[in-house]
Amino acid sequence: MNLESLAAELRGFVGITRKKAIGDLVGHFPVESDLIIASFGEDAAVIDDGDEVMLLAADGIWSRLLEADAEWAGYCAVLVNVHDIAAMGGWPVAMVDVFSVDSPDLAEEVLRGLLKGIEKFAVPIVGGHFHPDTPYSSLDVAILGKAKKGAVILSSSAEPGDSVVVGVDLDGRVHPKFAINWDSTSFKEGEVLLRQLGSMRELGERGLVTAGKDISNPGMLGTLGMLLESSQKGAVVDLDLLPRPEGMDMLAWQKMYPGMGFVVTAPQEKAGEVVRVFIERGLASAVVGRVTEERKLVISSEYEKAVLFDFEAETITGIR
Amino acid sequence: MNLESLAAELRGFVGITRKKAIGDLVGHFPVESDLIIASFGEDAAVIDDGDEVMLLAADGIWSRLLEADAEWAGYCAVLVNVHDIAAMGGWPVAMVDVFSVDSPDLAEEVLRGLLKGIEKFAVPIVGGHFHPDTPYSSLDVAILGKAKKGAVILSSSAEPGDSVVVGVDLDGRVHPKFAINWDSTSFKEGEVLLRQLGSMRELGERGLVTAGKDISNPGMLGTLGMLLESSQKGAVVDLDLLPRPEGMDMLAWQKMYPGMGFVVTAPQEKAGEVVRVFIERGLASAVVGRVTEERKLVISSEYEKAVLFDFEAETITGIR
Repeated sequence: MNLESLAAELRGFVGITRKKAIGDLVGHFPVESDLIIASFGEDAAVIDDGDEVMLLAADGIWSRLLEADAEWAGYCAVLVNVHDIAAMGGWPVAMVDVFSVDSPDLAEEVLRGLLKGIEKFAVPIVGGHFHPDTPYSSLDVAILGKAKKGAVILSSSAEPGDSVVVGVDLDGRVHPKFAINWDSTSFKEGEVLLRQLGSMRELGERGLVTAGKDISNPGMLGTLGMLLESSQKGAVVDLDLLPRPEGMDMLAWQKMYPGMGFVVTAPQEKAGEVVRVFIERGLASAVVGRVTEERKLVISSEYEKAVLFDFEAETITGIR
Repeated sequence: MNLESLAAELRGFVGITRKKAIGDLVGHFPVESDLIIASFGEDAAVIDDGDEVMLLAADGIWSRLLEADAEWAGYCAVLVNVHDIAAMGGWPVAMVDVFSVDSPDLAEEVLRGLLKGIEKFAVPIVGGHFHPDTPYSSLDVAILGKAKKGAVILSSSAEPGDSVVVGVDLDGRVHPKFAINWDSTSFKEGEVLLRQLGSMRELGERGLVTAGKDISNPGMLGTLGMLLESSQKGAVVDLDLLPRPEGMDMLAWQKMYPGMGFVVTAPQEKAGEVVRVFIERGLASAVVGRVTEERKLVISSEYEKAVLFDFEAETITGIR
């Protein structure tokens, strides 16, 4: 494996590059409220609510996905939103959606997918808005969750010396119509999925991790990169330690959106227990690296090394 | 004024007819959660949170509005969402947005509008999702609010014999680029607007109303129709009593989305105090009709009468 070319490929991957627009955008939004504990750069905003916090997030389904498979897109709208809440150490409460369609057939398919998601993940859609007559189709879902106040897992709090731990479900398949989706959920019982999702809540409530995110469009390393950028840290990751489906090409795997996956940081002495929690809840897991003071994400494999992201020189999201 | 032709025109108004698709859609969504106190048919879903409730709503900006005036569309995205929370008797906490654009210029304009809304209504956007590269442009915003548990104003709880009261800001102008928007807010101080918006919270917390909604795309009578449909009631409304800007044509006014307006129902003996609260907070207000057991919205003017909606025979949203 040529690490330099892998790194260059990944830096150019659209799943990562399209995140750059976020920083430009959110620089515009002032957050002036004493209730807001955390906002941009997190998988969900954290809002004070007494002994608990409210978590609020929104995700839009990429139009490419709607075109490729509308039912899958509807399902994924739920999947990504429940992940945003799980990633924070919380539990989901309810969703609202804004759904625009240019054809009734597409609407039916998307609804089938949404319903499947609602049932599997046991979170209701409680309202929203429907545009029956737009010249395009789009699906945006927002989710409300809660978490115990001391148990919230942020992206911005990784510490030098922490272990980097990945938990991901390898029991899946590449989605037949969308080659960068690793589907590990659509064929599993809701109970199994809720047990996997609950791993983050357990890690948060037991105080085992310092930071964490769900693995999304930017892939495993891209997501870690976003976490490190938020935390203003770096890391060294050994690619050979990354859990990976048998026979799966490394570059392809790094561009994959897994159905269920998290990357967390944990104090070294707690990393073993983090791995145990992930495995016990049905995810493959391993310690894959270490957080560094130097703000670079360095990948290594056997005797090779390459800098994937140099956060001194470049940004992924540009959110500080 | 020919009431039959006015009624026919209004029934065919796209602001009203496009609501019909909602019932078909939401019939698909099961809400199976003990925490959900109210959902579809309300301006915001109501979710149990101890002594308070959480309010969750989402609104998408009609693509026609984005095309007509992107800055105004961004501003309206905030305006309509804060109204959804105010209409429930609550206060807004935070918003998230999903924003898709096909051009950087449009993004700048929409952002300017969003920022203006954030500042005027003092509610932060705390996260969301940005698609920088879609073949269309759209803007969806979800909002989280709270209310005291006993103070929530629903759409579904109007009672026969209740007075129908309208509160609306007549100090405005038809938007130069969008003839069905009555802009009464963009040129006023935030303080003035928050005082107007707070009328619903006061009405809810003082137990003065039985039901209420903010006046939105379907206009004043269309919004009342939705409230009556939710409540499974009817009403008789005297058009001559409706607050209306001087010189404004009745049909045009009925198709207008006012910048700040509410329609509520109240026990007859409390209706006078409701009017007083609206006026004291800077809205024009009047008792305009009465809720009936018979499920028809009847409009009258001098010696004429016409049935605007017969809910036994037809639906606006079809939500029950």
